[in-house]
Amino acid sequence: MPTLLLDRQKCLRNMERMAAKAAGKGLSLRPHFKTHQSENIGNWFREFGVSKITVSSVEMAARFTGAGWDDILVAFPFNPQEAGLLDSLTRRCRISLLFDNPETPASLKGLTNSVDFYVDVDTGYGRTGVPSSQPGMVEGILKSAGKTGNLEFRGFYCHAGHSYRAKERQELDAIHRKALDDLQGMKALFGHFDPVVLYGDTPGCSIQEDFSGIDEITPGNFVFYDLMQVALGSCKPEDVAIVLKCPVTGKYPQLDQLVIHGGAVHFSKEALETGGRKVFGQLVEPSGEGSSGEGWNPSNSGVFISEVSQEHGIIRDAGDLLQRTSIGDNLLFLPVHSCLAANLMKEYCVI
Amino acid sequence: MPTLLLDRQKCLRNMERMAAKAAGKGLSLRPHFKTHQSENIGNWFREFGVSKITVSSVEMAARFTGAGWDDILVAFPFNPQEAGLLDSLTRRCRISLLFDNPETPASLKGLTNSVDFYVDVDTGYGRTGVPSSQPGMVEGILKSAGKTGNLEFRGFYCHAGHSYRAKERQELDAIHRKALDDLQGMKALFGHFDPVVLYGDTPGCSIQEDFSGIDEITPGNFVFYDLMQVALGSCKPEDVAIVLKCPVTGKYPQLDQLVIHGGAVHFSKEALETGGRKVFGQLVEPSGEGSSGEGWNPSNSGVFISEVSQEHGIIRDAGDLLQRTSIGDNLLFLPVHSCLAANLMKEYCVI
Repeated sequence: MPTLLLDRQKCLRNMERMAAKAAGKGLSLRPHFKTHQSENIGNWFREFGVSKITVSSVEMAARFTGAGWDDILVAFPFNPQEAGLLDSLTRRCRISLLFDNPETPASLKGLTNSVDFYVDVDTGYGRTGVPSSQPGMVEGILKSAGKTGNLEFRGFYCHAGHSYRAKERQELDAIHRKALDDLQGMKALFGHFDPVVLYGDTPGCSIQEDFSGIDEITPGNFVFYDLMQVALGSCKPEDVAIVLKCPVTGKYPQLDQLVIHGGAVHFSKEALETGGRKVFGQLVEPSGEGSSGEGWNPSNSGVFISEVSQEHGIIRDAGDLLQRTSIGDNLLFLPVHSCLAANLMKEYCVI
Repeated sequence: MPTLLLDRQKCLRNMERMAAKAAGKGLSLRPHFKTHQSENIGNWFREFGVSKITVSSVEMAARFTGAGWDDILVAFPFNPQEAGLLDSLTRRCRISLLFDNPETPASLKGLTNSVDFYVDVDTGYGRTGVPSSQPGMVEGILKSAGKTGNLEFRGFYCHAGHSYRAKERQELDAIHRKALDDLQGMKALFGHFDPVVLYGDTPGCSIQEDFSGIDEITPGNFVFYDLMQVALGSCKPEDVAIVLKCPVTGKYPQLDQLVIHGGAVHFSKEALETGGRKVFGQLVEPSGEGSSGEGWNPSNSGVFISEVSQEHGIIRDAGDLLQRTSIGDNLLFLPVHSCLAANLMKEYCVI
């Protein structure tokens, strides 16, 4: 079976670096826990002074409440069906919600405890959020929340996820610049509420230096990083803290191909398109480092998983790997998208 | 939270139809359980006379052994690391393996109990298997297995998975025809072993009528079917037995867009490319049918999930759905690939 190896030192270094960057810029760090979804890894953040977190569902909030976290932002447009669960959580901790329309707060009559909320702002991603060009919609949300009661406006939230589609650094910079400008605009317009501004995906928080007007950052993926983040320039290959260890189950010299047990139910179907080809994982060589001797050398082997089906991973252009590999050997692969791989694998083997 | 609804009647009808087809053609049915991975659903097969099954890992075999299945084919090139687990399973039931190289059987010295094996044959998919043009490789495997002992050659296995890439019926027919021809060739060449021939993915088993030379079919996906199978012509939309019920969490008239809670960790990142656009799920209307009134009308709504991120599904060109939908409403979607969606969702709500 494929296993997920987590290099604790790299993971801690990623946490430390982001915490130091936030502190250096006077920003609060509220890491997104949807990447690791692990109580243990979550606890490692405490030594870097982290006391508030971000999650992507009320159920995930419930899980981390159980692990002792008591200031949790659910960074997903709230689903009114979950008002009951929300109410039970707010009895013992501070849960913050995102709203981007007046309908949702209007439907939350009958909340027993006070709930903070942020208005989700869209600065160009086009997924969720009030368009930054339409501050009038914010008024509508505040009015609706005011009528409902027990809902406290805290500020603005923005996830500029279109950074993941950026092809070059200039584009990343422009996305970041526009987000800062738009959020500063919102902050000024609603200044009488003294709003807090939450912002920051992993590419933005890793690469950028100017966070004018931002109060709190909420990146998640940086805890592990992955090939997509390497391609975006968010990190170096040596910062990627997880690999999937997969057994070789087939050798096909006639096709210049190896097959591993490691497919869509381990890596996910997320592909990186690079040089006209799809990549689902990149081979790295074991280094013998780490406390259990299971570290890896992050340099690019030039060998990739080219295709995945449910359980199979196919390595085309295997070259001399065919000669130096036996069936039953384990190979290590950096994942394309660590959030999805970790969600599928569910368990970590910490090295 | 998104939930997976399973229409029991449709699922039973799919099982019954495939069992009847197999019986009518004198074929044995050994369904692949990787699609549903459920002990309950697996048990439904028993009323259709199914007594042997296919799985994709030794771990999955162990799970279904626990559910009383005692004739299980692990249809994945065997990983010698799992010899210990294999040995414990063969104490109480019949486990069959796939080999496509002489290295694997050579590494299995020391098996306590007898294990059946099939030689995996590649008739053009190019993933695993001995190329059908190289029967000499089969000799090598048989020789190696003979030296190891406790390994019994039973016949040939073929998964013609390139059928999933077929663009039209003619291509599907040609893939099927070649597989039959190649397998008949292998069967004749190794006739002195009286080999059994196992074959059949869901498109082939659903669409084709000629199974000359085949003894046993091993389709899996047909138990649920999905949008990909509809596109291939394996089934009609009304045969798809599962939908994902997802709450609407955002309405964006300015973008003609809805957002649901239902993303890559529910549907997977598998997309169907249709008419130049990517589709991750298709909206169907609730019908009020089924014992709990949670059925659906399978006709094409023309509304699709156009993009997924980890938790979000984005419905572009939402049209009048925007007017007739409220935040918190549930919408139903046929999945693109039911195997991956079921693997992610893990739980079924049976209607």
